[in-house]
Amino acid sequence: MPLNIVESTHKKAKPESEQIPFGRTFTDHMFVMDYEADKGWHEPRIVPYEPLTLDPASMIFHYGQTVFEGLKAYRADDGRVLLFRPEKNFERLNLSSDRLSIPPIDEQEVMGYLEELVRLEKDWVPAFEGTSLYIRPFIIGTEPSLAVAPSKSYKFMIILSPVGPYFSGGIKPVTINVEDQFTRAVKGGTGMAKTAGNYSSGYQAQAKAAQEGNADVLWLDGVEKRYIEEVGSMNIFFKIDGEVVTPALSGSILKGITRTSILELLKKWEVPVTERRISIAELYEAYEEGKVEEAFGTGTAAVISPVGELNWLGNKMVINDHEIGELSQKLYDTITGIQRGRKEDIHDWTVEI
Amino acid sequence: MPLNIVESTHKKAKPESEQIPFGRTFTDHMFVMDYEADKGWHEPRIVPYEPLTLDPASMIFHYGQTVFEGLKAYRADDGRVLLFRPEKNFERLNLSSDRLSIPPIDEQEVMGYLEELVRLEKDWVPAFEGTSLYIRPFIIGTEPSLAVAPSKSYKFMIILSPVGPYFSGGIKPVTINVEDQFTRAVKGGTGMAKTAGNYSSGYQAQAKAAQEGNADVLWLDGVEKRYIEEVGSMNIFFKIDGEVVTPALSGSILKGITRTSILELLKKWEVPVTERRISIAELYEAYEEGKVEEAFGTGTAAVISPVGELNWLGNKMVINDHEIGELSQKLYDTITGIQRGRKEDIHDWTVEI
Ligand SMILES: Cc1ncc(COP(=O)(O)O)c(C=O)c1O
Ligand SMILES: Cc1ncc(COP(=O)(O)O)c(C=O)c1O
Repeated sequence: MPLNIVESTHKKAKPESEQIPFGRTFTDHMFVMDYEADKGWHEPRIVPYEPLTLDPASMIFHYGQTVFEGLKAYRADDGRVLLFRPEKNFERLNLSSDRLSIPPIDEQEVMGYLEELVRLEKDWVPAFEGTSLYIRPFIIGTEPSLAVAPSKSYKFMIILSPVGPYFSGGIKPVTINVEDQFTRAVKGGTGMAKTAGNYSSGYQAQAKAAQEGNADVLWLDGVEKRYIEEVGSMNIFFKIDGEVVTPALSGSILKGITRTSILELLKKWEVPVTERRISIAELYEAYEEGKVEEAFGTGTAAVISPVGELNWLGNKMVINDHEIGELSQKLYDTITGIQRGRKEDIHDWTVEI
Repeated sequence: MPLNIVESTHKKAKPESEQIPFGRTFTDHMFVMDYEADKGWHEPRIVPYEPLTLDPASMIFHYGQTVFEGLKAYRADDGRVLLFRPEKNFERLNLSSDRLSIPPIDEQEVMGYLEELVRLEKDWVPAFEGTSLYIRPFIIGTEPSLAVAPSKSYKFMIILSPVGPYFSGGIKPVTINVEDQFTRAVKGGTGMAKTAGNYSSGYQAQAKAAQEGNADVLWLDGVEKRYIEEVGSMNIFFKIDGEVVTPALSGSILKGITRTSILELLKKWEVPVTERRISIAELYEAYEEGKVEEAFGTGTAAVISPVGELNWLGNKMVINDHEIGELSQKLYDTITGIQRGRKEDIHDWTVEI
């Protein structure tokens, strides 16, 4: 579909240091496209970043029919702007949409619109170490109706936000609480989808964890509260006795693109790695036997977030003496190297804008 | 807080028959109040019904921090306008808010604002048999930020919508599918809260049920997929061998106000009633023994919705020969009688506007 572009006449000031708080500054433009039952997705357009006008009865406010994605544009050392596996995000968006009964987008077409948008906002991709331009595609149900049924109209939007480094001054191991009461997701639910309700439902557990000095929550499965699932917005990996283990996709875990990339790297490097069920009790036993060598969360935000300490029902597991593990560091350097154009992109993971 | 009222200058046409589709027509005014971390809830106002203007980064669009309520204003035969136990809705709203990390409202104060709003819109309360004015209070997180954390600002709104009878031509038994794969809620999740994400997550199961000719879904517990929880937007009751049984509040079931009222009525009438865990297998066994006398869903929308047929993994349970049971009818007549001012309100359940 032809893309209409309306350029903004008031350009905003861009961040002038790496001190950019996450997700509060937005660029001059955004992408918008509408869906109507009889027209399908239509009217793709890039317009000035501006407020949305929605009927208070719009379904998004009442029944939560919405999905989103999160990816980044990186400034390479030579000035190029690179996206990291963006096609995987649109693929996942459609999987999420399917779960939420939202009509699919044309992944290729939307990829083209995203490229146009990032091209227009190229100067917004910061160059300071560890910074990037965060990209947030999302879809909301807009039909003004209180009937509990899928919306007949939707809005797909992409907004862009320059962001600072996840850790200022390099990666740092964090302390994480193993949540034993609240549940994030369960088999048959929406855990594998990137949908709004999965996130606010974790705020109470997050607050509880923070009160005891933890930076994040490690979720267990919703059925038995035994098996490890994932961290707030990250998948989780453990290196146990030389072998890397990550929870298998159970239906209640998000299939992280960083997770997929790490699995591919480890296989290439011939590091033993398995996706399987792993219980918190098994982890603790391995810990007591001194076998837990590394633990790290993985996601677009931090790429690799080493876990220095896990708190589980009063049991404290200190991992690798609160130091960054060798494998964690190597994965971090490899992926960020590819994202920044410092390492050869032998996997063809980046898309240059 | 003083309530500011801005009257609408363009009055819309009111429905002229009982044929009013659910939740698509809204009255001339709405109630709005804002929350800011430093000011608390402030600026309560009644303004013309109009679109909301929100930053596309508003948290409601991304992380689903929102809660809502649903109640009705009824036109009594003598012309009075009655609300049914509205204080219970604001009590439940605050319980939902607590789960979603949303600041509580002052229940009494908001009750006063609701009364003002309904008074102003009194002419919108339809008088046709079975009609009412549906009241939708809701809160949304409005802070423009992509950080996964509770919003620092919120909007509380009340919108009003005249609605037709749930069943045209009196109550009719419905056919319901027992869902065995999808999960609505699980212990530790948000099932006991009235929050958006709980509803759109059920659309796939709803569509599957509809495809096989079912009007709704009966949800089982998320852990074992054995215990009966509730129907789409209704609690569920069974009369088995003379005793009334409804699933106990497990943490994943909404505490319906109709449910509470029915429990109170049955106790007063000295009908044996228990809130307990009941498995679908137990129900089926009782059914095969010819002991399932009645089944009915309960909620604000239909008050009592008799279940004529339950489909569970290819097993069909036809209840009371697809007829309305005696107890179902008596409960329906009693509650709607009180709501319409036809029966004496000995429990002090109604609030006159
Ligand atoms: C719940 C959840 N798990 C895992 C991830 C990691 O996914 P990705 O590597 O694609 O960023 C995210 C972030 O997107 C997430 O929200
Ligand atoms: C999930 C759910 N269960 C039960 C109910 C019934 O509650 P009430 O009787 O308060 O309308 C509702 C409707 O509000 C609901 O949404």
